Amino acid sequence: MTAPAALAPPLRPRTDPELAARLARSAATADGHFLSTADVDAWLADRARAHRFRVDRVPLGGLDGWSFAEGTGNLVHHTGRFFSVEGLSASVGEGPAHTWQQPVIRQPEVGVLGLLAKEFDGVLHFLMQAKMEPGNRNLLQLSPTVQATRSNYSAVHGGSRVKYLEYFAGAGRGRVLTDVLQSEHGSWFFRKSNRNMLVEADPDTDVPLHDDFCWLTLGQLGRLLRRDNVVNMDSRTVLACFPAPPSDAGALLTDAELQSWFTVERSRHDVDVQRVPLAGIRGWRHGDDVIERDDGRYFRVVGVRVEAGSREVGGWDQPLIEPTGTGVTAFLYRTFEGLPHLLVNAKVEAGFLDTVEIAPTVQATPGNWAHLPSRDRPPFLDLALDPPADRVRYAAVHSEEGGRFLNAESRYLFIETDESETPLTPPPGYQWATPAQLRALTGHGHYVNVQARTLLACLDTGAVRLQGAGGAPAGPG
Amino acid sequence: MTAPAALAPPLRPRTDPELAARLARSAATADGHFLSTADVDAWLADRARAHRFRVDRVPLGGLDGWSFAEGTGNLVHHTGRFFSVEGLSASVGEGPAHTWQQPVIRQPEVGVLGLLAKEFDGVLHFLMQAKMEPGNRNLLQLSPTVQATRSNYSAVHGGSRVKYLEYFAGAGRGRVLTDVLQSEHGSWFFRKSNRNMLVEADPDTDVPLHDDFCWLTLGQLGRLLRRDNVVNMDSRTVLACFPAPPSDAGALLTDAELQSWFTVERSRHDVDVQRVPLAGIRGWRHGDDVIERDDGRYFRVVGVRVEAGSREVGGWDQPLIEPTGTGVTAFLYRTFEGLPHLLVNAKVEAGFLDTVEIAPTVQATPGNWAHLPSRDRPPFLDLALDPPADRVRYAAVHSEEGGRFLNAESRYLFIETDESETPLTPPPGYQWATPAQLRALTGHGHYVNVQARTLLACLDTGAVRLQGAGGAPAGPG
Repeated sequence: MTAPAALAPPLRPRTDPELAARLARSAATADGHFLSTADVDAWLADRARAHRFRVDRVPLGGLDGWSFAEGTGNLVHHTGRFFSVEGLSASVGEGPAHTWQQPVIRQPEVGVLGLLAKEFDGVLHFLMQAKMEPGNRNLLQLSPTVQATRSNYSAVHGGSRVKYLEYFAGAGRGRVLTDVLQSEHGSWFFRKSNRNMLVEADPDTDVPLHDDFCWLTLGQLGRLLRRDNVVNMDSRTVLACFPAPPSDAGALLTDAELQSWFTVERSRHDVDVQRVPLAGIRGWRHGDDVIERDDGRYFRVVGVRVEAGSREVGGWDQPLIEPTGTGVTAFLYRTFEGLPHLLVNAKVEAGFLDTVEIAPTVQATPGNWAHLPSRDRPPFLDLALDPPADRVRYAAVHSEEGGRFLNAESRYLFIETDESETPLTPPPGYQWATPAQLRALTGHGHYVNVQARTLLACLDTGAVRLQGAGGAPAGPG
Repeated sequence: MTAPAALAPPLRPRTDPELAARLARSAATADGHFLSTADVDAWLADRARAHRFRVDRVPLGGLDGWSFAEGTGNLVHHTGRFFSVEGLSASVGEGPAHTWQQPVIRQPEVGVLGLLAKEFDGVLHFLMQAKMEPGNRNLLQLSPTVQATRSNYSAVHGGSRVKYLEYFAGAGRGRVLTDVLQSEHGSWFFRKSNRNMLVEADPDTDVPLHDDFCWLTLGQLGRLLRRDNVVNMDSRTVLACFPAPPSDAGALLTDAELQSWFTVERSRHDVDVQRVPLAGIRGWRHGDDVIERDDGRYFRVVGVRVEAGSREVGGWDQPLIEPTGTGVTAFLYRTFEGLPHLLVNAKVEAGFLDTVEIAPTVQATPGNWAHLPSRDRPPFLDLALDPPADRVRYAAVHSEEGGRFLNAESRYLFIETDESETPLTPPPGYQWATPAQLRALTGHGHYVNVQARTLLACLDTGAVRLQGAGGAPAGPG
C-alpha cells in the first residue's frame, strides 16, 4: 500500500538556475562538436545538391488545389486547411494612410516552431535543419528542428511525417524550456501566431541524426547570423524567445514604467479591423495572374508551383505574398552609463491580435513611402537608410518566412546614435528599453514583434555586441 | 554648457527591491492609520446616507438616451460612446453547448481601474472609494480610487471630473508600480479590457482627502474581503495585479512547463466568434421590457433608471446584464510538500481576446447546468456546491462589476481537497499551479481571468491563508 504523499513527485525549482550559464557558454563557443562554422557553407551546398527543388511562377487562377471561393473571392485550398488569402479592412486612427483595404493571409491553425537542444562535450547544441522554402531567393536556409503547421504535422497533404515532432507535440520527450505563442508579420498575416519552443533532449538519450539536420552552438548561429540569408525567420524568432537570463542591470525606465508605456500605447489607438471578402477590396487589381495595387506599392499576391524531392510531399502549388521592395529594419541605440538602450516603437500592424506590439525603431519598405512628403514618412527612416558607416554595429539581409513570402528581404541593422538624432525624450510611440527588458517580454506573447525578435536573436547569439563610441566594432562580419 | 551625458537621468533598478516587503507589511497591518476596520461599516453607512441613489427598473425600449439601432437592433447610446449591447455568435468545438448565440456588451474603450497608494506611519495605505453602482444589491461597495471609462473621464456625459484622475492619466503624478491590461467577464463582455493600475504617491506630497474616500491597509482590505459584498470587483482585480513578490519556492511544474500547458490549451481550441446583429439571435426573446432566453437560462438584458447625487452626473438610464442565478467560483487546492497548489482551469469564454484564460477550478452558475446529465456538467461542480465544512478555508459572496451587471453575485471559495477528489494528474484542461506562479502571470494581460483574480486578491491580502489538513483554519471570518 502506498501512502498518498508518495504519489506526488517532489517539488522542483520554478526556473533552472543553471540554464542561463549554459546558454551563455554555447553562445561563447564559436565552433561546434560536429561541424565547424567554416564548413557550414559546404554542408549547405551539399544538402542543396541532394534535393530537387524547383520553383516556377504560375497564375493564381491556375494553382492546383486552390480556387477563388464563390461569393467572397477568397483564395482557398480545396481541403479548407493550410491558409487562405482573404480581404482586410483597417482603420487605425492616425498616420498618412489611416484607412485601407488589403489582401491578408489567414491561417487560424497554430503551428510549431521547435528547436531541439542537447549537450555535447558540455556545450548546448541546437538541431538545425537545411530547409528549402519556395519564397527564399536562395531557397535553402537553416530552419529550426521542426517548423510545421497543424496541417503539416497531421499530414493533411498525405506526405511523410515531420521528423523530430515527437519532441514537441503530444506528451513530448525531453524538457520544455520555452513554449510561447508569438505573432508574425502583422502587415501580411491576420492574427497569426505560432508556438516558439525550445526543448532539451535528455543527455542520456541518443537523438538520431537525419539527413538535412546538423547540431550547431549558439556561437555558430551568431556567426551565421552575420551573413545574409543563412538563418531563417523561424529560427530567429525561436532564438529570441529563449529563457531570459537574470539581470541585475538597471535601465532608464523601471519595468513597471516600460509596461505602463506599452499599456498606454496599446490603449490609445482606435484600431478597427474587419475581415472582408477578397473580391472587390479597394485599391487592388485582381488580374488573371496576380493581385496587386494600382500604384504598384506594398505587395503582390502571386502563385508558385514547387517541385521538390526533400519535403513531406513531392510537389505542390501555393500562393505567396511578394513585397515590392527590400525593407529596412533597424534598432537605433544609445548607451547610458555604459548600458545600451534600444529605441523601441509601439507599432500598429492591422493583423495583430491587439493593436500594437514593440517593433524596432525603423521597420519600413522605403519605396512605399517615397511619394510622401518627409513629414509623413516614418521617423528615423532617413538615418536607417543612410547611417554613418562607423556607427553601424550590425548589418545583414534576412528573409522573412519563405513558406508564405516571396523574396521578402529586409536589411537588419543596429546603429549607434546620439542625443541629436535620438533624444532622451523620444517622440510619441517611441521609448527606450534595454535588451534585457525586451528579452523578459519575449517570454510572453504579443509584446515584441517578429522583426524585433530577429534583432534580439542577433544579440543573444553574439552576432552583434553593442557598445558606445570608442568601443571596438563587432567581430568579423 | 552642459555635457551631453548630464542630460540622461541615472539608471535605476528595474524592479523595486523594497516593494514586496512594504506590501507584506501593509497586509500584516490589521488596522489603519485613519480608520479602524471595525469602523468601516459605520463609515460606509454614513456615506450611503450622504447621497441620494435610487435604482428603478425601466423597459429597455424606454431607456433615455438609448435606442435599438436600425438594421442591427443593437442597443446603443445616442452619443455612440459608453458601451453597446450587440449579438455574438460562438462556436467552441467542445462541450455540451458548443455553438450558440447571445447578447454581449461591447465596450471598445479601455478604462482605468486605478488604486493610489501612500505610506503613513511607515505602512502603505490604499485610497478606497465608497461608490454606489446600480447593479450592486447593496448599492455601495469599496471601489478603487479611480474607476472610469474613457467616456467617463473625458466627461462625455457632461458630468464633473473624476477625482484623483491626475495620478493615473496623462503625465501622471506619483510612481507607477503596476499598469497592465486585463480582461473582464468573457461570457458577458466582448473582448473588454481595462488598465489595472497601482500608483504610489510621493511620500512628501499631501494627497487631499475627498468625501467618500478613505485610506486602508492591505490587511484591512483582507479582513473586509472575508465579508460579503464589501470590496467590489474593480478593487479585487487591481489587488491581484500588484507586483508579484519574488519567491524561491518550487512547484510541481516549472514555470516553463506551466506556460507550455497554457500554450497548448490556447492552441488546441478551435474557437470561432463573430459579432452579429442583436436582432434575431437564436434562442433569445426580445420583449418590450427585457431580452431573455426562452428557457430562462444564463442572463437577461434589463434596463434601469438611476437617480444619484454622488456621481459625476445626477442621473442616467442604462442597460444591465442580470444573471439568472448566483454563481459558484472555487479554487480546489492541495498541499504538496507543505506548499499549496491551486487546480486551475484553462477556460474558453467566447468574449476573450484569445480563446482561453486561466480560471478557478469551478466557475459556473449551477442553475444553467441542472437540466444536463451529470457527465455533461462542469467537473468538480458538485464538490464546490457541497464541500465538507471542515475543508472550506474561505467562503464569501462577491458582486461582479455593478456598473454593467445587476445582482451578479457569486460565492467564492477555497476548498482543500485530496487525491480522491483532485488527482495529481488532473483531467484535460486542468493543471496544478502555485499562487506564486499565478501571481507572476497577473503582471501580464490575458493569462488569469477576473474570477481567478478575485480569489488571488483574497490570498494577497491575507483574507485567507491556505494550509494542509491539521492546520489552523483561516482567521476570523
